[in-house]
Amino acid sequence: MIRQDCFRVEPWAIRETGLDLDLLAQTESILALSNGHIGWRANLDEGEPHVIPGSYLNAVYEEVPLPYAETAYGYPEAGQTIVNVTDGKIIRLLVDDEPFDVRYGKLHAHERVLDLKTGLLHRTADWESPAHRRVRVSSTRMVSLVHRAMAAIFYEVEALDGPVDLVVQSELVANEPFKGTADGDPRAAESLEQPLVSEFSGQAADGAAVLIHSTKRSRLLIACGMRHVVIAPRGAKTEDNFEADQVRSTITTTLRPGQRLRMVKFVAYGWSSLRSMPALRSQVEGALATATSHGWAGLVAAQRRYLADFWARADVEIEGDPAVQQAIRFAMFHVLQGAARAEQRSIPAKGLTGPGYDGHTFWDTETFVLPVLTYTAPAAAADALRWRHSILGPARDRARDLGFKGAAFPWRTIHGEECSGYWPASTAAFHINADIADAVLRYVTATGDTDFEKTAGAELLIETARLWASLGQHDRHGRFRIDGVTGPDEYSAIADNNVYTNLMAQRNLVAAADAATHQPGVARRLKVTRAEVAGWRKAAAAMLIPYDDELGVHQQASGFTEHERWDFARTRPDQYPLFLHFPYFDLYRKQVVKQADLVLAMHLRGDAFTAEEKARNFAYYEAITVRDSSLSSCTQAVMAAEVGHMQLAYDYLGEAALMDLDDLEHNVRDGVHMGSLAGAWMAVVAGLGGMRHHGDSLGFAPRLPRGIRRLTFRMTFLGRLLRVRIDHARVTYSLLNGKPLTFDHYGKPLRLGSRAPVARSIPKQVAMPAPEQPLGRAPARRGAERPSPLREEHGRASRLPKPKRSNPPAV
Amino acid sequence: MIRQDCFRVEPWAIRETGLDLDLLAQTESILALSNGHIGWRANLDEGEPHVIPGSYLNAVYEEVPLPYAETAYGYPEAGQTIVNVTDGKIIRLLVDDEPFDVRYGKLHAHERVLDLKTGLLHRTADWESPAHRRVRVSSTRMVSLVHRAMAAIFYEVEALDGPVDLVVQSELVANEPFKGTADGDPRAAESLEQPLVSEFSGQAADGAAVLIHSTKRSRLLIACGMRHVVIAPRGAKTEDNFEADQVRSTITTTLRPGQRLRMVKFVAYGWSSLRSMPALRSQVEGALATATSHGWAGLVAAQRRYLADFWARADVEIEGDPAVQQAIRFAMFHVLQGAARAEQRSIPAKGLTGPGYDGHTFWDTETFVLPVLTYTAPAAAADALRWRHSILGPARDRARDLGFKGAAFPWRTIHGEECSGYWPASTAAFHINADIADAVLRYVTATGDTDFEKTAGAELLIETARLWASLGQHDRHGRFRIDGVTGPDEYSAIADNNVYTNLMAQRNLVAAADAATHQPGVARRLKVTRAEVAGWRKAAAAMLIPYDDELGVHQQASGFTEHERWDFARTRPDQYPLFLHFPYFDLYRKQVVKQADLVLAMHLRGDAFTAEEKARNFAYYEAITVRDSSLSSCTQAVMAAEVGHMQLAYDYLGEAALMDLDDLEHNVRDGVHMGSLAGAWMAVVAGLGGMRHHGDSLGFAPRLPRGIRRLTFRMTFLGRLLRVRIDHARVTYSLLNGKPLTFDHYGKPLRLGSRAPVARSIPKQVAMPAPEQPLGRAPARRGAERPSPLREEHGRASRLPKPKRSNPPAV
Repeated sequence: MIRQDCFRVEPWAIRETGLDLDLLAQTESILALSNGHIGWRANLDEGEPHVIPGSYLNAVYEEVPLPYAETAYGYPEAGQTIVNVTDGKIIRLLVDDEPFDVRYGKLHAHERVLDLKTGLLHRTADWESPAHRRVRVSSTRMVSLVHRAMAAIFYEVEALDGPVDLVVQSELVANEPFKGTADGDPRAAESLEQPLVSEFSGQAADGAAVLIHSTKRSRLLIACGMRHVVIAPRGAKTEDNFEADQVRSTITTTLRPGQRLRMVKFVAYGWSSLRSMPALRSQVEGALATATSHGWAGLVAAQRRYLADFWARADVEIEGDPAVQQAIRFAMFHVLQGAARAEQRSIPAKGLTGPGYDGHTFWDTETFVLPVLTYTAPAAAADALRWRHSILGPARDRARDLGFKGAAFPWRTIHGEECSGYWPASTAAFHINADIADAVLRYVTATGDTDFEKTAGAELLIETARLWASLGQHDRHGRFRIDGVTGPDEYSAIADNNVYTNLMAQRNLVAAADAATHQPGVARRLKVTRAEVAGWRKAAAAMLIPYDDELGVHQQASGFTEHERWDFARTRPDQYPLFLHFPYFDLYRKQVVKQADLVLAMHLRGDAFTAEEKARNFAYYEAITVRDSSLSSCTQAVMAAEVGHMQLAYDYLGEAALMDLDDLEHNVRDGVHMGSLAGAWMAVVAGLGGMRHHGDSLGFAPRLPRGIRRLTFRMTFLGRLLRVRIDHARVTYSLLNGKPLTFDHYGKPLRLGSRAPVARSIPKQVAMPAPEQPLGRAPARRGAERPSPLREEHGRASRLPKPKRSNPPAV
Repeated sequence: MIRQDCFRVEPWAIRETGLDLDLLAQTESILALSNGHIGWRANLDEGEPHVIPGSYLNAVYEEVPLPYAETAYGYPEAGQTIVNVTDGKIIRLLVDDEPFDVRYGKLHAHERVLDLKTGLLHRTADWESPAHRRVRVSSTRMVSLVHRAMAAIFYEVEALDGPVDLVVQSELVANEPFKGTADGDPRAAESLEQPLVSEFSGQAADGAAVLIHSTKRSRLLIACGMRHVVIAPRGAKTEDNFEADQVRSTITTTLRPGQRLRMVKFVAYGWSSLRSMPALRSQVEGALATATSHGWAGLVAAQRRYLADFWARADVEIEGDPAVQQAIRFAMFHVLQGAARAEQRSIPAKGLTGPGYDGHTFWDTETFVLPVLTYTAPAAAADALRWRHSILGPARDRARDLGFKGAAFPWRTIHGEECSGYWPASTAAFHINADIADAVLRYVTATGDTDFEKTAGAELLIETARLWASLGQHDRHGRFRIDGVTGPDEYSAIADNNVYTNLMAQRNLVAAADAATHQPGVARRLKVTRAEVAGWRKAAAAMLIPYDDELGVHQQASGFTEHERWDFARTRPDQYPLFLHFPYFDLYRKQVVKQADLVLAMHLRGDAFTAEEKARNFAYYEAITVRDSSLSSCTQAVMAAEVGHMQLAYDYLGEAALMDLDDLEHNVRDGVHMGSLAGAWMAVVAGLGGMRHHGDSLGFAPRLPRGIRRLTFRMTFLGRLLRVRIDHARVTYSLLNGKPLTFDHYGKPLRLGSRAPVARSIPKQVAMPAPEQPLGRAPARRGAERPSPLREEHGRASRLPKPKRSNPPAV
């Protein structure tokens, strides 16, 4: 947990006003920059100290063997793990021969600011060397959202007192040594020692320097190039060095007090599994040439425009809770960063902000991240689903190896093959296939993108439906059962008729049957027969949904409510998360829920439950849900709001939004939680906003908790940009862009025919007693009555004096 | 499968009349000698060719890391694997400088005979060297059942034609190189490279040679010594060599035709985790001195007496089926070998005949092996249970680590700690604890050994009952449920209320409650309260036993009969065993049974089922049981007989008895199947003999299949030696030894008051249609009508001419 006054609460920035080395790893993730293709952790410019140095390229991975104490049929033999590629961030500095290192000398001031409007990471350090030379070092870093292959750094050093001799060493470093973070937590990644093999190191066109490496087993080529523009006092000298794993440009100069050395470092990345080394080299040199021609100012302006466009379509304004306001924008910024230029590569669970979960992509993408993108950056959602389409080959192979039809997508992967070494929590979690189908359906119905449906969507729906048809069976009573699977709740496994899985499979089967009708060409190509389609509809119609008549609640899976309830009273606070302190054996067989499962079904398949069922189920499962996953509070926020517990919804929204900024899961060091960040948006829009989209119908049922004065969000639906502005009495809908649209307000149709806002009142609500959580597991209470103890509010002093912000000039 | 005419069918021997190198690995296991403390695979005297060289000492193991692709709480970090210790079997031979190796020159005749009455392994080879020198090599090998630390070899070479220069090299070899058998079959063991570290190598008292080694991680000391008595023509020379991993006695001589060199090699073993090297050295030198003073003849005579005594108490005579007659004696011989001198060490699943399953002990011991020993060699049964008692420490630790009370015995272990790296099929198979309790109860009630009950039995019952009380719970209807466990059937896992587990736990709870009453001192020491005992009785009384009212059968576990039935019609014969060709995911969730589970419950807890239930359940489960485990056919034989399918019982008896001799599981190479061998006795005595023993009551309900003319077996109960002789019309009971005894014959009490045999008729039986097995999985049909195609019957020619049997003279 980040309890320190680490970040200031500001609406559009994450400002760190000191430097706490104990939080270095966390800030490396939180302040990371990415465009979905390149990811740079917020390591200090000078490289050290660091905890996890990280430079990532989407889908650049290495194969690793997966060991088993006891192996069995169908276990994957090789895993895939994200590789820390060539580090282009490093700019070392020597001040009168003393290396600039915040651990030595005296740091008079240090500030880092992640600016959510410009997408820039600013840093200023006022440092006195051990020999008492004082300099101000400023840098501004970007990973370009516009130029996919590019990152850049503006770097400036100013002599503050006496004249100093400066040496600036700007480097590309491959195979960075790294101590690793392994502490036995299975969520942390294995670090690879020396993953890169040198292929080329040398000078390129126009003074650029290029390093090319390959990976050993996955056989990928990775190129990284840099080029500098330097403004230095007369007499400065430049020298270049080339080694296999390191190239360096050294600038030597002397500064008088007040004098500055300025430099822009352009860094370009490229990789390929197919293209040759010369081709790759040309690619990065070309990117460097483009960037140089745009110049630093050009890149900054383009970045600002890109983000202005995004915020215009996607901004969420929360009045009354500045911390959540900041957090929700931070969340959306990271979701955008993770997805913007992924372009038919995956969006990993940690984006490109750290090595957590080995850089793998899970169901988080489709179930949590894509809903946000679908309504705010739909092209990115389509790209992510086209990535799924591109790995249909291995998914079909996996289904066949397991003995099933259609496609079985991997629980965790980078390249498409299953990488999980524990099948009860992964392969058995077949719901990921319905989650992908649901994301397809959501995207197609939210955008009307029939081209996508034809070229990718229908095939995804059909192949996943085929999986369900072969996974399930009609029992002797005709009910369609799906036995022995694992639902979202990872504290249960290998259960029959998981409600979430069965309802999502039901939707998948119907959607595939519909798609086969809409896209007869696709159906023909895939040899879909009428009998097959009829079988899908029959299975969907007969889907078994277990219900406990005696308790009057749904069973998360058959028999679930017969199990013993976890003994929460005897579980100590330090025994959470439970999976680090109790065997799965015991977790699996008891009523204890790691993360929303039935409650998620009630959100995503809300059409399958009555209001009364939702209220009863929510209360029942609330009492046994411990939220040991970051993918829970957002869904609990949504359903708490729907069943009328607005304060609880708000509390969960707060937890979801602050998951990473406050490091509530204690592992943001390994990367931010993309799913949870996206979930914060869901908590706001689907929770407080009551937004629901099932099939062609869109609706809102907004309501605010006491602590929020006003909420405004924007979303795109069928090409229309909507703005929804909610206060305690009423909601105002505005059509900012696009043709007229009809949707529901509290179940009643409302047509926006023009740009004129339409207001509707919010129905009164009867206050209900809030349900209880397991002992000690209630979310932190939010509200205007008391400030959050966790974060610095505006105006409170930080530990180090706040330095003057130096805006770098255009170069 | 051993399809060749490999072994002759003889009543008291396993005679191999040729040498098929393709079957070398199998015969290494089948002809292995052991006394439960020392195990020697039947490797050829000259060491090579071999497949798995094996010399084992009970409980000598090495620790090995257990790797996991994804680890979790409670996974054992270290495994234990059996170590191939110093090989004392090797006697190499050079004939005119040509090494005697059956792969070179010409083997005119080769025979090996395992004599079940004397416990000796004889070998004769008539060999012509590549240089056309012909010798007869004979050896007789023993592992002494009387002298626990001793093995010995009588070795003889005779020159058959011209004079030959002979060199005999008798060796002790540590760290034998070994290519391994790993072919991806999870049942095979990992081989350890160079597991032994030299500690001492040198000459000892009276010309003995000793090698002492240690293991690296388990820190055990292992000593092996040898001493020779040589009878050679005048002029023979002897020389000794000592190296760290090898000591050698070389005898050089020249033989004229007809002249012989004779030698006895005494080999002694000792090991300790506590004692010092000098102590261990003295121990083996002392053993060698004792053996030398007895001489070869003395050892042979003692071995013969030991076995004569055993057979007098335990022999099974089957008239009408010579192959099964041979197999059942072979089975009992191996069970005896595995247990005789184990003496508070475990009886591994493969005995000491091979490295299969890493030398681990499973539930096989208590559920299959101990019933045989309890009624035929009760002291060995007590010793095996005292071993369990000795590992109560780690079992209590394991229970505590998992969050439970009492003791949780490991699913697989050598030293007492859990060694399984896949918990759903191991840790979750908690039934092993009730199996141990059942073995305790059986032993105590079959022997009346109250001293054992007081010093070990009661504590085992109480600590396992405590486990059950904490594992299960009374549900809202008051029923006692045990959820999320794995029963005997390894094609199901993590299921609720496995009938076998619940019924065995029920017996365990009641037995513990009774034991706490019988042994108040033990109960006091263990702080057993009245409330605790009452809780055990209440849980037992309320035990939930799932039943499918609609189908009228018990459910193997809750919900089992709702699952899809495995598609046997689409499973090819080469896809068995299923676990090598299908994922556990799919096996677990379908109705397919690897091995008797509910059917085993009906045998061991026959008191909990009506006759009608047994018949219906048997038919239902018979149709879905594939017998991919060697621990199934014996139980199916027992229950087939009870419900009246005598031919089927006979077929299963045949399969159980021939499991290893015919290599039906294709893995006898890694060691014989102790559980299945013991099961063959169960199939005869509990199956055809209808022997049942529940609590204090013993009963018989004998009946023979058509193919068997007469069956006689002996067993000990409460100190009485009974003989039961059965033919098709009647059964004759004789009290061979001990005081009068009352037992049941077909449910009616019968008292044997004197040595006079008492005959009873066998009731007529209504023929019933036999149930069906899964397609292609019916057992091979046995019967007098046609001879078994698999094995050579008396009088058929073997491929090599049968050599004259040379009985070694006494030395």
